[in-house]
Amino acid sequence: MSKGTVVLAYSGGLDTSCILVWLKEQGYDVIAFLANIGQDEDFKAAREKAERLGAKKVFIEDLRAEFVEDFIWPAVQANAVYEDRYLLGTALARPCIARQMVKIARKEAAHFVSHGATGKGNDQIRFELSCYALYPEVQVIAPWRIPEFYNRFRGRTDLMEFAQKHGIPVPVTPKAPWSMDANLMHISYESGVLENPKSHAPADLYMMTKNPEDSPNTPDVLEIEFKNGVPVKVTNVKESTSKALPLDVFSYLNEIGGKHGIGRIDIVENRFIGMKSRGIYETPGGTILLKAHLDIETFTMDKEVRRIKQGLGIKFSEFVYNGFWYSPECDFVRNCIIKSQENVEGKVQLSVFKGQVYILGRESPKSLYNEELVSMDVQGDYDPCDASGFIRINAVRLREHHRLQGFSSTKN
Amino acid sequence: MSKGTVVLAYSGGLDTSCILVWLKEQGYDVIAFLANIGQDEDFKAAREKAERLGAKKVFIEDLRAEFVEDFIWPAVQANAVYEDRYLLGTALARPCIARQMVKIARKEAAHFVSHGATGKGNDQIRFELSCYALYPEVQVIAPWRIPEFYNRFRGRTDLMEFAQKHGIPVPVTPKAPWSMDANLMHISYESGVLENPKSHAPADLYMMTKNPEDSPNTPDVLEIEFKNGVPVKVTNVKESTSKALPLDVFSYLNEIGGKHGIGRIDIVENRFIGMKSRGIYETPGGTILLKAHLDIETFTMDKEVRRIKQGLGIKFSEFVYNGFWYSPECDFVRNCIIKSQENVEGKVQLSVFKGQVYILGRESPKSLYNEELVSMDVQGDYDPCDASGFIRINAVRLREHHRLQGFSSTKN
Amino acid sequence: MSKGTVVLAYSGGLDTSCILVWLKEQGYDVIAFLANIGQDEDFKAAREKAERLGAKKVFIEDLRAEFVEDFIWPAVQANAVYEDRYLLGTALARPCIARQMVKIARKEAAHFVSHGATGKGNDQIRFELSCYALYPEVQVIAPWRIPEFYNRFRGRTDLMEFAQKHGIPVPVTPKAPWSMDANLMHISYESGVLENPKSHAPADLYMMTKNPEDSPNTPDVLEIEFKNGVPVKVTNVKESTSKALPLDVFSYLNEIGGKHGIGRIDIVENRFIGMKSRGIYETPGGTILLKAHLDIETFTMDKEVRRIKQGLGIKFSEFVYNGFWYSPECDFVRNCIIKSQENVEGKVQLSVFKGQVYILGRESPKSLYNEELVSMDVQGDYDPCDASGFIRINAVRLREHHRLQGFSSTKN
Amino acid sequence: MSKGTVVLAYSGGLDTSCILVWLKEQGYDVIAFLANIGQDEDFKAAREKAERLGAKKVFIEDLRAEFVEDFIWPAVQANAVYEDRYLLGTALARPCIARQMVKIARKEAAHFVSHGATGKGNDQIRFELSCYALYPEVQVIAPWRIPEFYNRFRGRTDLMEFAQKHGIPVPVTPKAPWSMDANLMHISYESGVLENPKSHAPADLYMMTKNPEDSPNTPDVLEIEFKNGVPVKVTNVKESTSKALPLDVFSYLNEIGGKHGIGRIDIVENRFIGMKSRGIYETPGGTILLKAHLDIETFTMDKEVRRIKQGLGIKFSEFVYNGFWYSPECDFVRNCIIKSQENVEGKVQLSVFKGQVYILGRESPKSLYNEELVSMDVQGDYDPCDASGFIRINAVRLREHHRLQGFSSTKN
Repeated sequence: MSKGTVVLAYSGGLDTSCILVWLKEQGYDVIAFLANIGQDEDFKAAREKAERLGAKKVFIEDLRAEFVEDFIWPAVQANAVYEDRYLLGTALARPCIARQMVKIARKEAAHFVSHGATGKGNDQIRFELSCYALYPEVQVIAPWRIPEFYNRFRGRTDLMEFAQKHGIPVPVTPKAPWSMDANLMHISYESGVLENPKSHAPADLYMMTKNPEDSPNTPDVLEIEFKNGVPVKVTNVKESTSKALPLDVFSYLNEIGGKHGIGRIDIVENRFIGMKSRGIYETPGGTILLKAHLDIETFTMDKEVRRIKQGLGIKFSEFVYNGFWYSPECDFVRNCIIKSQENVEGKVQLSVFKGQVYILGRESPKSLYNEELVSMDVQGDYDPCDASGFIRINAVRLREHHRLQGFSSTKN
Repeated sequence: MSKGTVVLAYSGGLDTSCILVWLKEQGYDVIAFLANIGQDEDFKAAREKAERLGAKKVFIEDLRAEFVEDFIWPAVQANAVYEDRYLLGTALARPCIARQMVKIARKEAAHFVSHGATGKGNDQIRFELSCYALYPEVQVIAPWRIPEFYNRFRGRTDLMEFAQKHGIPVPVTPKAPWSMDANLMHISYESGVLENPKSHAPADLYMMTKNPEDSPNTPDVLEIEFKNGVPVKVTNVKESTSKALPLDVFSYLNEIGGKHGIGRIDIVENRFIGMKSRGIYETPGGTILLKAHLDIETFTMDKEVRRIKQGLGIKFSEFVYNGFWYSPECDFVRNCIIKSQENVEGKVQLSVFKGQVYILGRESPKSLYNEELVSMDVQGDYDPCDASGFIRINAVRLREHHRLQGFSSTKN
Repeated sequence: MSKGTVVLAYSGGLDTSCILVWLKEQGYDVIAFLANIGQDEDFKAAREKAERLGAKKVFIEDLRAEFVEDFIWPAVQANAVYEDRYLLGTALARPCIARQMVKIARKEAAHFVSHGATGKGNDQIRFELSCYALYPEVQVIAPWRIPEFYNRFRGRTDLMEFAQKHGIPVPVTPKAPWSMDANLMHISYESGVLENPKSHAPADLYMMTKNPEDSPNTPDVLEIEFKNGVPVKVTNVKESTSKALPLDVFSYLNEIGGKHGIGRIDIVENRFIGMKSRGIYETPGGTILLKAHLDIETFTMDKEVRRIKQGLGIKFSEFVYNGFWYSPECDFVRNCIIKSQENVEGKVQLSVFKGQVYILGRESPKSLYNEELVSMDVQGDYDPCDASGFIRINAVRLREHHRLQGFSSTKN
Repeated sequence: MSKGTVVLAYSGGLDTSCILVWLKEQGYDVIAFLANIGQDEDFKAAREKAERLGAKKVFIEDLRAEFVEDFIWPAVQANAVYEDRYLLGTALARPCIARQMVKIARKEAAHFVSHGATGKGNDQIRFELSCYALYPEVQVIAPWRIPEFYNRFRGRTDLMEFAQKHGIPVPVTPKAPWSMDANLMHISYESGVLENPKSHAPADLYMMTKNPEDSPNTPDVLEIEFKNGVPVKVTNVKESTSKALPLDVFSYLNEIGGKHGIGRIDIVENRFIGMKSRGIYETPGGTILLKAHLDIETFTMDKEVRRIKQGLGIKFSEFVYNGFWYSPECDFVRNCIIKSQENVEGKVQLSVFKGQVYILGRESPKSLYNEELVSMDVQGDYDPCDASGFIRINAVRLREHHRLQGFSSTKN
């Protein structure tokens, strides 16, 4: 008799194929779920493989458009960056996948979900918190945290043996000496030879971006149009091509950004569970959007609103990184940020060249920039004498402080 | 009879030369003070000019080393960036100059200081707040805020006429159609043709950095060593040259950064007085240091300390931008940041190429990075089962929230 | 010929009566505007007086209900407290008055507004920033900052003389040796004998609250019901009286709070202009509401949302104190706070007695409090083993830190 | 053969007595450790009981002075309050106890520590994080999270039976229908009948403070002197008694505060593990100190430093509440706060009466309060005209914003 039905986040790779079979061994009915979030994958082959391995059902679903609109766009609005550098490509994809997984689990009356994430990483947390938030009664089976599983599969060799024994196709190409995670937004690389933080990344590691040394010797110039803080159109100024659907906009920025080697970083970051890990990321389209959005936002948003929103954006980034997309606090902050974007509208021109994004100019019907007010040549509606009073009043406190210090130093 | 002595922040240019003469006209004795903070200037010629125009005394002082050590280094420790992009090159120089100016004013028993900053900008504030903080009794003469001055000199033509009449040497080369401010840390460009935020910056504007299109086709690789969060040594790995004195380190980074076109930005920023202005900046050495420091800091600093310190760094940047270097709050925050840097120590390797800085690797005797702990291949002192409890407890709140929402949606 | 029309914020007192006459002397047409925001005033007499002094028109308007609903309620939602103690009674009233004043000025085509606030205080700023924000072209006449006015009226005696000369009725009762500002929310006392921060406040100073030594020896018990974070009903549990209209609710809380001596504080605060000042405040109803709202809010709001909202509330309080009610940032924060209050609903029981408010209990249909989950006697849907993993993972970072410290101390 | 030595945080009560015996049953040598942190306990009887139950050694240590100086004083400097109301009495005691426990464990070469805290509370976390931080290799035995223990002892009856069987003295007085935790700083009450958040607390619950209805009808007036932000002397002004040693100062404030019914609160708070719980606290001395410190701090500290420090104090409170006293972040913040207290010096006079603390006046040799500067009657070194410029410049941004809004509303 079956222990029940489990929806497995299936990747098509060796690990989750073994988990699929192992779950069946343990007495579960397994539904394989594979999300298309833009990774390079033969989805047809993956479906056949899962079916061959005994999956009760296989769901393969194209989530790319909703990944862009529901997850990447809010990150753009937030200028989401974790620890000043990481653009959260993996962290944003997890709740997108989990949401669909929960939908399937509920529809199929499955009480279990399972995944192949390791026990030291962030992804287990992002997956499971999303599942618990959306489906509180669900039970999670995380094999890499179950002693009988991880003691049995102590290394890749054990998995390979198990695979051969159970008719799981074994990869023919040798595994790269690092692991990677790919989606529409980025590819991340970690572990293996990258675990030594001093070692340089191999030159052939990057798959989404050209090496800037080999990238074109002339820039591309783009114009990105924003409305409510999200891009609504991108135009290649020289070629006059343009895209307007969210998925098209983002894919095109990836293409151009990748061509020019945009968005490579090598960092050590702090995982939620408190360990430092080294990661290498390439985020071509996301990097272009971050720079463009920062520009149009500062151009159109009040200075003091910007200060508060900057703090909220940092919080948002931490919530997303830690797996709390589906939480009251992330929901609250997202709402606040959306509110802040009402006037973030206009066009930014930029060039991309040899790994770098250069902002060239911007315009907006809603800008708070006032050319006459700021002009050095025109006085405008501004009395320079006012500045004297402004400075003198700001100095009141500083002069008092000095007085007291003088007193202290005399006394002591 | 003299109205008293005024120390004038003298640049050697047309504006402050006219101000020098005008102040004398008004009945003041004028001491000209010109700080060498790394700008490109013929200091000898400037001295002679000031003397010829009737300055009672002329002080020209090399503040470059103290600018690096007392102002740029704290900014490096803070990862100081204003509004996510501007590295504060001008804002950091102002209190350095003002400090010396106050020293001279006190020594020379001058009750007045004067400067040529405009009435719409930030520099007037930075100058004057520093002066008031260090010398509360001082009186400031800001001609560009005095109606009888600014009504008399309504444009460059008026200044030229005045100059000719008073034997002030008139510049022979035509003025660039923008204004610039240069020091060791950066050059900024603003106003004139740049006031239209949509116009692209002219290609020949930049003076400190090569155009990346013309920069070398092979990267330079640098190793920067930090102690207490400040660079103590920079080595060009291929050439085996290295620098260790603060001024030498920073100048060398400027040289290499400039050669590779590092640190150009074009932004619209919010001035303290509440208007938006467009500025273009090139900060080659500072940009390299920011990236390197971010790397070594995250590598060595505890995650939660980093979060708090990140917030303090943002505050620090605002204080500096607004002119509050010499304030109790900036002093307090600087002290906190210094405390945070005690273990920020180690070496960062990076390459610079075509306008971009790439971190390659890092090492530290004080890192909190634990290769064994984080390894995917070694369990180390870590029980993956703990993560299950960690996630379940973090989900308590999320599941409760869902329960309530369910209740609400049922009810409504 | 008239210089134009000025709307004067008229209080009926000596100062603004003199200002009214003085403005006429200067050639202005004067419209007197007196807002009823709950202060104790003979409005009919004030009208007659203003007319007699030559006001072109007199507007006396009852703003009490909108003061409660549009200004005090948002402050309740925010738990607005400045510098941990001051409940902002005066700061909240200023934008309410200014809004009406601007309405009148626009309707009457007046290009000027005027007020009797001093040049060292916060109120001038609150008034004027509100006016500039709502009516950017307006011009402000602030006599206490105009040398020809303040040099003429150097003390109360000068005002009295001027009054007598111009037929302005002179107060017969001697002025209290301090100044006060009263409205529906509070009375504040400052200056005069209170300027010495060491001197105790005279016992007879307070006008809105009973001395707790003389207040009733038995408590009143109230139940306050909240919806969306604002009180919708107050019931005196013993007496079974209840109020539901906003103005009635607030007035009743003032009455009961005043009877029991609630809400007296004596503080030194930091004014916006950078000086410290000593103020004494009594805020009976506001103090009760703050305590009750804090209780129901924590009962119903998610923990992490609360943390963020607490920070926003502190910012809100600073904006209000400094006079930025009508600003993009205050508007933004108010919107965020309103969003946070959606589930802040329920009833709080409390007793008021001898200057203190005691929360007794609370209930809510939307509480996140789960009696079964938290119970010591019931396990509920909670596995205590999870806590072990939670703690162990939280300790990962702490143990790493200790490891490094050990290393450091060995090394040094 | 023994499994090893465990140091048990022993309270002398039924629970930890049973745990002591149970640990022996499991094969451990048990060292009982009982900290005197000011709770009301017969320490001699507790020692005899532990010895009779088979403890290998018994350590009873008076930690009261270090509790005050090393834990309560930093909380006073921080104005430490969790979620706006809870003064952290229990949270501060835990690391104090754990520190001593670790010292004993290291000295006695014990590899285990154990405690009787429940699996749903905060104390288990506070205890264990402190232990792990100070003694990373230690192993924790938390019986209330071990199924074989908590399934065996499902209620008080099971414990009673076990006690009777093993010669553990059984309490003769019936247990109160709630649990409490007492130390020098406070007594907390929770669970049992208090779990219903609507139920009022029984009048006879409080043990540390008088019911204000029965407290004296005349106030006591105290003067508290601070240096570096901590109290160095308390004087009863009428009685002329005074205390200067930290433990004496705090005990005296407890005595006076308790006599006047100071410091009772009834709240629902958010535990670290994400559930809401209802707690009732009485913190007489701590409440007086909080109010007095807030007063002297604002009197002596620069306004902007205060703002930053307020944020750090909130963070500090969260760290302490959550059990992170011994963490890099808490250490960092404590250091920053200490720095902020350098000038927090002076005397505060206050009265305590019927549950309330009233600040009466303050003085300080280091105050930034400037009576002349702030005076309404003296102009001092202050030009009121400066305020006009200050306000106008602050309005620049607000007027621009209005201009844009006008544009928008016209357009839409």
